[in-house]
Amino acid sequence: MLQQITIKLHDHQYPIYLGAHALLDAELLRSLVPAEQVLIVTNETIAPLYLSQVQAAFASIQCDVLILPDGEVYKNQHSLNQIYDALIEHHHHRDTTLIALGGGVIGDMTGFAAATYQRGVRYIQLPTTLLAQVDSSIGGKTAINHESGKNMIGSFYQPDAVIMDLNTLNTLPDREFRSGFAEVIKCAWLAGDPLFKMLTQTLNLGLASISLEQLSQLILECCQVKARFVQQDEKEKGQRALLNLGHTFAHALEAYTHYQRWRHGEAVAIGLYCAALLSNRLGFLTQDDLHRMDVFLTHANLPRRIPKEIDLHQFMQWMQSDKKVKNKKMRFVLMTKPGHCHLDESVSDDYLYRVLLDCVQS
Amino acid sequence: MLQQITIKLHDHQYPIYLGAHALLDAELLRSLVPAEQVLIVTNETIAPLYLSQVQAAFASIQCDVLILPDGEVYKNQHSLNQIYDALIEHHHHRDTTLIALGGGVIGDMTGFAAATYQRGVRYIQLPTTLLAQVDSSIGGKTAINHESGKNMIGSFYQPDAVIMDLNTLNTLPDREFRSGFAEVIKCAWLAGDPLFKMLTQTLNLGLASISLEQLSQLILECCQVKARFVQQDEKEKGQRALLNLGHTFAHALEAYTHYQRWRHGEAVAIGLYCAALLSNRLGFLTQDDLHRMDVFLTHANLPRRIPKEIDLHQFMQWMQSDKKVKNKKMRFVLMTKPGHCHLDESVSDDYLYRVLLDCVQS
Repeated sequence: MLQQITIKLHDHQYPIYLGAHALLDAELLRSLVPAEQVLIVTNETIAPLYLSQVQAAFASIQCDVLILPDGEVYKNQHSLNQIYDALIEHHHHRDTTLIALGGGVIGDMTGFAAATYQRGVRYIQLPTTLLAQVDSSIGGKTAINHESGKNMIGSFYQPDAVIMDLNTLNTLPDREFRSGFAEVIKCAWLAGDPLFKMLTQTLNLGLASISLEQLSQLILECCQVKARFVQQDEKEKGQRALLNLGHTFAHALEAYTHYQRWRHGEAVAIGLYCAALLSNRLGFLTQDDLHRMDVFLTHANLPRRIPKEIDLHQFMQWMQSDKKVKNKKMRFVLMTKPGHCHLDESVSDDYLYRVLLDCVQS
Repeated sequence: MLQQITIKLHDHQYPIYLGAHALLDAELLRSLVPAEQVLIVTNETIAPLYLSQVQAAFASIQCDVLILPDGEVYKNQHSLNQIYDALIEHHHHRDTTLIALGGGVIGDMTGFAAATYQRGVRYIQLPTTLLAQVDSSIGGKTAINHESGKNMIGSFYQPDAVIMDLNTLNTLPDREFRSGFAEVIKCAWLAGDPLFKMLTQTLNLGLASISLEQLSQLILECCQVKARFVQQDEKEKGQRALLNLGHTFAHALEAYTHYQRWRHGEAVAIGLYCAALLSNRLGFLTQDDLHRMDVFLTHANLPRRIPKEIDLHQFMQWMQSDKKVKNKKMRFVLMTKPGHCHLDESVSDDYLYRVLLDCVQS
């Protein structure tokens, strides 16, 4: 049985389906493609695992496939051009449907290709990682990276459906699974209860013992939280920016290290600690809550500190070039307590530097 | 005195200003930029003529300039990357404003860069050609070309303002000016009276004797027609497709000849004749009206026939790859009489071929 949430925007709505073996539901997949053409975009890791079952749903129509290399480092113009070339080579028209089968990188790039091929075609997200299921596949943020920064080129473009197959998480490497938990933790701090309580219990028991049922509930709850923010503010003119909690730090860490050192969620984990410490130093977050954040990240076995080798001045320059800078001021999402975060543009560079010094690994 | 029209879309509205010396109105220009950063994108032909006056309006804020080579052949990924690089090199943030100073090529590319830089920033159109003023600067169609077809990569992304300085038309080469008239002719056939009557009178008197006052009225009327279509159907799900009258032929002609043989409007002129002849042969358009179209194009001194060297089979293959193909069927805009056009997907390849044979220069 699939569970369903609907994302309702002012001029578009789309369903999110969640359940075990959802990708085996050929009838559902087929029903989401109105015309006679499909391009499945996936990567070398996911293709051997799930491509054939997705392809099977489209055996009766033109179904082309593009398999890209796996990794954030390939989320660039070159891969995007490969998607365009595949669409053009196989004569895909404006009524085609793109299918993103993979994690956040595949989803973001395929979404951006869909947003810009012939001024916009349909696309469906089939997220196969925890991170993509709880975060990147919902809400229509599409992008590629530029050497100068993460997601610098992109657009807001909503999918036509999202199908999350819980079973794909069984094949997810442990590091990838934990990385996804960083976004669950972010989501819980933003939303508060009941998600915060559910997550606390899960982490106390240990990630190793999590059941499919618990996981399903956590993912569904995260999707609902994300849906609320996206529905209120599709293009991030206001409240949606809160979803960037920890991400100003995370994106700078990723760009600094050329997207090679950390999984995205790992960088987010460090970013969450930085955001919590900054919030604490500014008097918004209690010492107890700062400690709670640290314990959450520890239980999820995620990195929590900036490595010593990172030059903090260079790191701050990367933060300056992040998208969240507004009128030349860096914007931070600060925490007060679970369920209460706010935007702040008043942190001086000097102050930030001193807080960052205390986020460095001792 | 500037005239003003407002384009009202469901989640965005923006003004179009039209008048003599509008680009000298520094106060108006400055009022359209809320933050402290501007990038002016223009080309080598326009820069010596108008760049300094536009720059002058932004003397008190960060104003960067990118000058691209002039021509449709440069409307490509390479030029787009140059815009991204300029934005990144000069640390433009999400609240920056891009200014497109030039014709349709500069406007389409700058608009697409604005649509996709950091998931969307503001942009202002300052169209300096007749074609851009009556057509491409309004309505939010942005794009670059791909070797395989015109405007294959792009998006719908509305500007924040359009300012049309009638005096820029004084420096427009005659060929460029006549090319713009192809879109005026298209617009008049779509809309009927009063534009059709105004255009008939203007063309009867001859383009050489047109006054600034007449021209201003024609442009304003075209903008209003275009505004109506765009407001009804921003993303071309229906009626807006009628604005493509003649364009299935035109885009194929341009792509076939690598964007080097014709100005866009010249290709549109040939396309309008093809569309009229097809409509006539199918029994929709009278012989008299077909003749009227021919006379319009002749009076504007525009090309009206497909040159003999064009291989019609190859030409039809280019038409097949055009964006307007839907579910593998080519869609044509057909004419019944001035003010009455409709979409048609029922033309067979054989039938089309025979009509095209009669569009070839004798």
